[in-house]
Amino acid sequence: MKHKEAILASSKRIAPYVHKTPVLRSQGINAICETNLFFKCENFQKMGAFKMRGATNAILQLTEAQRSRGVVTHSSGNFAQALSLAAKSLGVTAYIVMPENAPQVKKDAVLGYDGKITICQATLAAREATSAQIAKETGATFVHPSNDIDVIYGNATAGLEFLEEQPDLEVVIAPVGGGGLLAGTALAIHYFGKDCIAIGGEPSAVDDAYRSLQSGKIEINTSTNTIADGLRTHLGDINFPILQKYVDKIICVDEVAILEAMKLIYQRLKIVVEPSSAVALAVVLQNKNAFKNKQVGVLLSGGNVDLQKLPF
Amino acid sequence: MKHKEAILASSKRIAPYVHKTPVLRSQGINAICETNLFFKCENFQKMGAFKMRGATNAILQLTEAQRSRGVVTHSSGNFAQALSLAAKSLGVTAYIVMPENAPQVKKDAVLGYDGKITICQATLAAREATSAQIAKETGATFVHPSNDIDVIYGNATAGLEFLEEQPDLEVVIAPVGGGGLLAGTALAIHYFGKDCIAIGGEPSAVDDAYRSLQSGKIEINTSTNTIADGLRTHLGDINFPILQKYVDKIICVDEVAILEAMKLIYQRLKIVVEPSSAVALAVVLQNKNAFKNKQVGVLLSGGNVDLQKLPF
Repeated sequence: MKHKEAILASSKRIAPYVHKTPVLRSQGINAICETNLFFKCENFQKMGAFKMRGATNAILQLTEAQRSRGVVTHSSGNFAQALSLAAKSLGVTAYIVMPENAPQVKKDAVLGYDGKITICQATLAAREATSAQIAKETGATFVHPSNDIDVIYGNATAGLEFLEEQPDLEVVIAPVGGGGLLAGTALAIHYFGKDCIAIGGEPSAVDDAYRSLQSGKIEINTSTNTIADGLRTHLGDINFPILQKYVDKIICVDEVAILEAMKLIYQRLKIVVEPSSAVALAVVLQNKNAFKNKQVGVLLSGGNVDLQKLPF
Repeated sequence: MKHKEAILASSKRIAPYVHKTPVLRSQGINAICETNLFFKCENFQKMGAFKMRGATNAILQLTEAQRSRGVVTHSSGNFAQALSLAAKSLGVTAYIVMPENAPQVKKDAVLGYDGKITICQATLAAREATSAQIAKETGATFVHPSNDIDVIYGNATAGLEFLEEQPDLEVVIAPVGGGGLLAGTALAIHYFGKDCIAIGGEPSAVDDAYRSLQSGKIEINTSTNTIADGLRTHLGDINFPILQKYVDKIICVDEVAILEAMKLIYQRLKIVVEPSSAVALAVVLQNKNAFKNKQVGVLLSGGNVDLQKLPF
């Protein structure tokens, strides 16, 4: 019951700092998928992604003394922005380590939220070493984008809200990259769902989480060839055991299905999502029989996409 | 008071067939525009645009005998889809006259709603003659996309909902093309607003409505060179007197501002809108001082955009 209470406490803790996001539906997409879909729109979350929940929760769990020394993370994606904005909202300094090949648009977004950027080489080793160095020099607390229990509990609040609004969901599908969203979602479903299971959606091109559940140990991707650029990371030692225990299965999807799902979301729901968000709907598109006539929740993770580089 | 009662009756009449659309906000856009914006999201309306309201209202005002003979309109845009879907929902046949140069994607949308398409030459004269011929042959009732009082009352229900949710709006800006949305919006504001005015937004490249209010007679565009492709039509003898009486003013905007507004809506609100919808926000972007620190309503008219042809 530790997880259950922690999720409820997190939900209350972060409520003043995050949006309660809407759930949207589309008769057109339901007809195409031959099922009943509910879309939890974390693209409408502050800074445009669910990561705002976990980042806020992690900072709020720090002591005043810790907060005064700041937080540090390494990320080239949404978590860099989320930690920067969450820190700014709480009067805390955020140190963000970004790889030298990070796009300018992402750096600008972090700077827009007053994040202090340190550029390093584009390797995981360099990112970790640079973060550790900053933590040592400043006393800042390191917050991992997905492998941190308070981040996971914060992310779980999206699933909690989803089930509060749609208590009859039979399955919720969330994309899996670093594993922080799927771990949180699976916990929320386990403790707050009625007869509901959690399924992860993963691009076949970066199927490390799928293989990890098969092999029982954390696997690594050898390629990163997917348009779902937020899902190229791998699992961690904190979220992996949660996935093993609470996730029903992970289903892999091809790039054609991801693109088709993304188009449907833009054309029918009329909302802007990033490619990673389309992976959960792609799972349904590619497996219609498995979800036929069910009450299916789809977690749309975020909407931070470079409009100049839309894949259609 | 005739208008007031008619709008209230229309709202009740069409309620089972249309969505009550949400109002969205963005702190980011507010900061950029230095004002307080509220976006009424008719891009989330059925078939993706406010036109569903007027089309439904017009058909519901017909007698059973009239309905049995169908409805006919000429349109290459959203009204063709709106009348087709509204007719389908009510078990009525919709005859749609479309110009030979209408994009296949628009024809497919009409066919998807069971509209019966007749192709004609791409001139207004040919469209009117073909519609008249169909009305004569079938007994179908002609419904004009914007110059029909029941269509205008139906459109007005968006403004009514907007003011019910945000009663303190000081100004509401709607795009003006054929004049049906702005006329309905202005009526709703006059009868249901507290201290609120209606402003029309129009691309400078097709400033016929602006010039019509200046000259006191319906003016025509000589060019159609705007990305706001839904706003290239001109006013009619039913909506023009309403605009003259109830609209505070029409403000023209350039193409750069329309594109900038469209980008902001995609990036910050995370929603999909068509270029015409961005014109009202462009009015604010181009006239920040006039709207500074006010409560400003922006009517987003629709979201039917060809994703392959996004202007960014």
